[in-house]
Order: sequence, then structure tokens, then C-alpha cells
Amino acid sequence: MSETRTDIGEIGEFGIIDRLTNGISLKNETSIFGVGDDAAVIDGGPDEFLLVSTDTLVEGVHFNLMYMPLKHLGYKAVAVNVSDICAMNGKAEQITVSIAVSNRFSLEALEELYAGIKLACLEYDVDLVGGDTTSSVSGLMIGVTAIGRVKKEEIVYRSGAKEFDLLVVSGDLGGAYMGLQLLEREKDVFKSNPMIQPDLDGHDYIMQRQLKPEARHDIIKYLKELGVKPTAMIDVSDGLASEILHLCKSSNVGCHVYDEKLPIDAKTSMTALDFNLDPSTCALNGGEDYELLFTIKQSDFEIIQSNPNFSIIGHITNVEDGVYFVDKSGSAVTLKAQGWKHF
Amino acid sequence: MSETRTDIGEIGEFGIIDRLTNGISLKNETSIFGVGDDAAVIDGGPDEFLLVSTDTLVEGVHFNLMYMPLKHLGYKAVAVNVSDICAMNGKAEQITVSIAVSNRFSLEALEELYAGIKLACLEYDVDLVGGDTTSSVSGLMIGVTAIGRVKKEEIVYRSGAKEFDLLVVSGDLGGAYMGLQLLEREKDVFKSNPMIQPDLDGHDYIMQRQLKPEARHDIIKYLKELGVKPTAMIDVSDGLASEILHLCKSSNVGCHVYDEKLPIDAKTSMTALDFNLDPSTCALNGGEDYELLFTIKQSDFEIIQSNPNFSIIGHITNVEDGVYFVDKSGSAVTLKAQGWKHF
Repeated sequence: MSETRTDIGEIGEFGIIDRLTNGISLKNETSIFGVGDDAAVIDGGPDEFLLVSTDTLVEGVHFNLMYMPLKHLGYKAVAVNVSDICAMNGKAEQITVSIAVSNRFSLEALEELYAGIKLACLEYDVDLVGGDTTSSVSGLMIGVTAIGRVKKEEIVYRSGAKEFDLLVVSGDLGGAYMGLQLLEREKDVFKSNPMIQPDLDGHDYIMQRQLKPEARHDIIKYLKELGVKPTAMIDVSDGLASEILHLCKSSNVGCHVYDEKLPIDAKTSMTALDFNLDPSTCALNGGEDYELLFTIKQSDFEIIQSNPNFSIIGHITNVEDGVYFVDKSGSAVTLKAQGWKHF
Repeated sequence: MSETRTDIGEIGEFGIIDRLTNGISLKNETSIFGVGDDAAVIDGGPDEFLLVSTDTLVEGVHFNLMYMPLKHLGYKAVAVNVSDICAMNGKAEQITVSIAVSNRFSLEALEELYAGIKLACLEYDVDLVGGDTTSSVSGLMIGVTAIGRVKKEEIVYRSGAKEFDLLVVSGDLGGAYMGLQLLEREKDVFKSNPMIQPDLDGHDYIMQRQLKPEARHDIIKYLKELGVKPTAMIDVSDGLASEILHLCKSSNVGCHVYDEKLPIDAKTSMTALDFNLDPSTCALNGGEDYELLFTIKQSDFEIIQSNPNFSIIGHITNVEDGVYFVDKSGSAVTLKAQGWKHF
């Protein structure tokens, strides 16, 4: 081992992945695309690619069982992986589930977790085909691998965006983050006085965005029906700003994103203001919305523009032009990602 | 949640899996076989099946970093999954790696872990195509998903053993378990007096069996060359007894296993005796040898019997005859699995 000691907190998740996967080349003919997109791509016969995505949720890092019901956790663990398959324009068909759990959990607690997993399988039309259950020294860890399929000519990578394409996002943003803020606040209130009941009335929407996020498989079907094939796509897991930067880097393009175009639900905005937070910042950096961010050709503008499921939030530029966020006053600032820093 | 509280330690890993996967049915046409074999089977085109296996190693449960070098750990995490693909008579081609790690690990430590992963990829001709790196509250967790391929007519399930088939195991057994005993003993010595150097001289073989187990992909190739297709197969991860019971249960057969036929290396036997352990018990219940246990037709007897890579350890009987272990005195006792109990 080298004598240098680099703190992993310093370089962050993407820095770590870059270092660890540096110099990896693909040798098997069936390995089509490896690290660097929402899912790996492997050959699946004459007409199809298989897509493989994996994501792990760790107690105390990605969730807190004080306010995350086990059933919701199971559902979410599946949804976030299905979302990665959607981001390749594919359909998830199988999952495997790995659980590491300490003996403070009962069998009934695990059944509750699995009830959520099974519900998500039903919702997304996915089969649970395997997995692994083991003990942990402390806490709960749940890892899901999703396997999906896409016709070869329909696959969408992060890297396909071209100058003049339009940048589009589905649904609305920032809700999941505000749901988390609300839950954290109520947890603190509960800690200081367990007799006070949580005050979550009227916050159903953002609570659901945090606790029961949905993979936008409906959007993938819908785009097919509309005859629109995105030129590049990624799901919004770490925050819009971070995903825009990933997409632009992979596609080797720049872009302009407009503050006034960001889709933010009124309930999200109101809660943000209640917390003295800027709603746009929540939308840009909040993460966990699991909406789809994609680029389309100018020729698809009419179809997408008139559709309430989509918001055109910017346009793609030449890479030399950089990645800019244009605020409501018209000033352009370089877009930076805060995203999630777990380390 | 139900008001009953069942301790997960009481019902063990297989009991948990049975309960949690109870009632799961496969709905997608591409899902060929789900929970209950070494790997899940999904459709991979006109001629091939894809095989998916996942296994997670948890610090303090599956490994102890006091004596498991990180590079070996990375290698082992890949090998155990490749072994599952071998057990379906397939060839592993891709892996994804999920790591959860606390900030007590440096980037250089993770690079050491990845050096082992990459070495295993080279050895097994597998591409690292994706993964996930996240933080943990404490300790290290490494989850690997392996994806393999097998021609449709060549797949081997656990369930294909028939009465009169012969029960065969590759290599030798019990070594990995004795390696672990030795490491545990030296750890205790070190704890009581850190000045004493570990005494592992002459134990290279069993140390290597524990620290750097190999998936028997060579055996799979070799059987193909010999023209022998096993009727059923499983890898020896939890211990021979446990795997024999799995194979017999899946195939709905009984069997007789002969103590005197168990392949045990002289170094394993000597170390076992040194620890006052019965070598056969170590071979039966030790686990982690990652050899292949399989059944063959009587017509393949000649080919296998004369081959030093294989030991014929018993024969398959009718299910009503039960699963028996015949000791050296000729007494038959019902075979029971101890295997690993992590909970």
C-alpha cells in the first residue's frame, strides 16, 4: 500500500469512482458500455441490450428509520434503480435484493421491508429473481440491482446531447428535499419533547416525494407514444445541477439553464420559504426527485412544449460556452453542483 | 406491522429467505428462473441465458481486516460470485461492485481493495461495468453482482439430480475453514502479546484457501472438454453438508455420502488434528472452499473416476431413502447441515 493517505471525504463520491475505475477497459464482446452512465449496457441478443444498475441505501447515511417506514424504504430502494433503467430509455424487468441487517431487526420488520419491495415490483412490473440476506454488525443496508432491456436503436446515453438541443425535465423539482427538511425538523421537535405530535398536515405532497419517490417509467412510455426519442438522458437523483453537469460533461457540450423555467410545485415553494430557503436552490441541489432530465432535438419542440408533463428549462450550447445558470434578473453564473456529499 | 416479534437469529438465513420470498411469482417472459439456485436465469437472446448472482461481504461478519488484506478481500468478493455463475455451468462476463465504507478508510485503502477486484477480473476474464460507492456509518461492506452467460442447452440447475446419479466434488475440502481457525488463533495470540510474530509457516496452502479462494471456472471448461454435463450442480460456499442438502431438496432425491471418500488435503487434516478437530467434520461443515459439487450420470463414471480433479463421494437415491452420511465404520447417520450461522 502507498504511504500517502488521501481522505475520502476530500475527493467526494465522483472523485473516488474516477480514481478507482481509472484504466478499466472492457474486454468481453458482450460488454457494450461500462462505468459512466445510469446503467451498464451488455449485449442481450440480436435486437436488444440489457441494462444493469445497482444502488445501495445505508441506514444513517441514506435513510433514518426514525421517520422512514420500512415499507417505504423497500419501495424506494427498488424505485431508485428502476429510475436508472428509465434513464437509459429502457424497461426494468428483474431485480435482485441484498440485505445486511443486525439482529435488532425482527423477521416481521424484514417482512415489512419486503412488502414495500414487492409493491414496487408490482407497480413497475418487475420480477424479484434473487438476492442475498446476511447479518450486519449494526444497522440496515439494502442493495438492489435492476436489470432492464431496451431495443438497440432506442437506447439513450448521457453522451448524445448536441448544440441547439433543448434541455427538458419531467415533473417538478425540490419536493423530496423539502420533505426531508420537514421530517428532520419534526424529528428534532420530537427529540426535545416526545409528547408533541408531528405537524405534517398539509404536507402530503412533499412528504410523498421524499418517502415514496416514483421512477418515471410512465414518462418513458409516454415519450415513445409521442414519438420523441431524447438525444441524451439522466435521472435526477443527486440534484438537477449535478445531473446537468454530468450530462454536459458526457456529451461534451455546454448549456444555459433558466431559473424562471424550473418547475417547482407551489407546495414545495411555500415550504422552502417557510424554512428561509430559496426554492430554486432546493430544486437545483435538493436531489432525490427521480425525475428525468433529457435533451431533445429542436424539431421536437412543439410536441414537448405544449405538454404539462414536461418543462423546457434550457438549451445546449457549444462546450466552449460553458454551463450557465441564468437567474431571474437575467444574470448568468457558472452552474455548480452541491449535490449530496455523504462522505 | 404484525405484533409478533420473531427473532431472525432463531430461523437463520435460509428460513428468512423462505419467508421473505414466499409467494413471489415471475411475470416477465424474460424471467426464466428466480430465487432458489446459485444464480437467477434470464433470457439473453435465441441461444443463451443470462445468469445473475449477487453476494455481499460485511466487515465483522464475513471478514476481519485484522488478518484479511484488502487486496485479498477484493479478489474474494469477485471470486465468490464467479463461483455462483460456474455452478450454473456458465461463464461470468461482467460484474458490478457496490461499496459502503466509513471515512476511517483512505482512498489508498480503497485502491488496494480495487487492485484485488481488478486482479480477479483479469483472472476470470470479467469486465467491471458499474457500481456504487457510498459511505457507511461504520465498517466496510462490499457487494458484487456477477452476470454470466450459458448456452440454453448447457445450463445446469440444482434440481436435475436423478436416482443412481453419482455425487462428485472438485478439489479438496475443509482447507478454507482450517485457514480461518489458524488466523483466529494467531489473532488471539497477537491480542495477548503483540510482540509475538504470527506463526503461519508451512500453512501456505490452507491460508490461501481461506484468503484467496478461487472460483473453479477451470473445472467448468474441463468438464466441457471431457464431454461431461452434470445433471445438477451447486458451489460449496456454506459447507458440503449444507450444499448436499440443498441439491437433494431441489432435485427431490436422497443420497448416500461416504466419509472415506471425502477429499481432504493432508495439510488440512494435520492442522485439524492439531486443533483437536475431526477433519471430516471440517470438510462437511467448514464452508468457503468454493469447490463445485455436482451429480453425473452413471455413464460418465469412467471419465470422472480416473481423474485426479474429481472425487466421487456418494450416489443419489430415491427421496424416501433420505440423505445419509456413511462413516468409516459403515454406520449411516442422517446428514445435517451446520453451515454458517451469521445471525
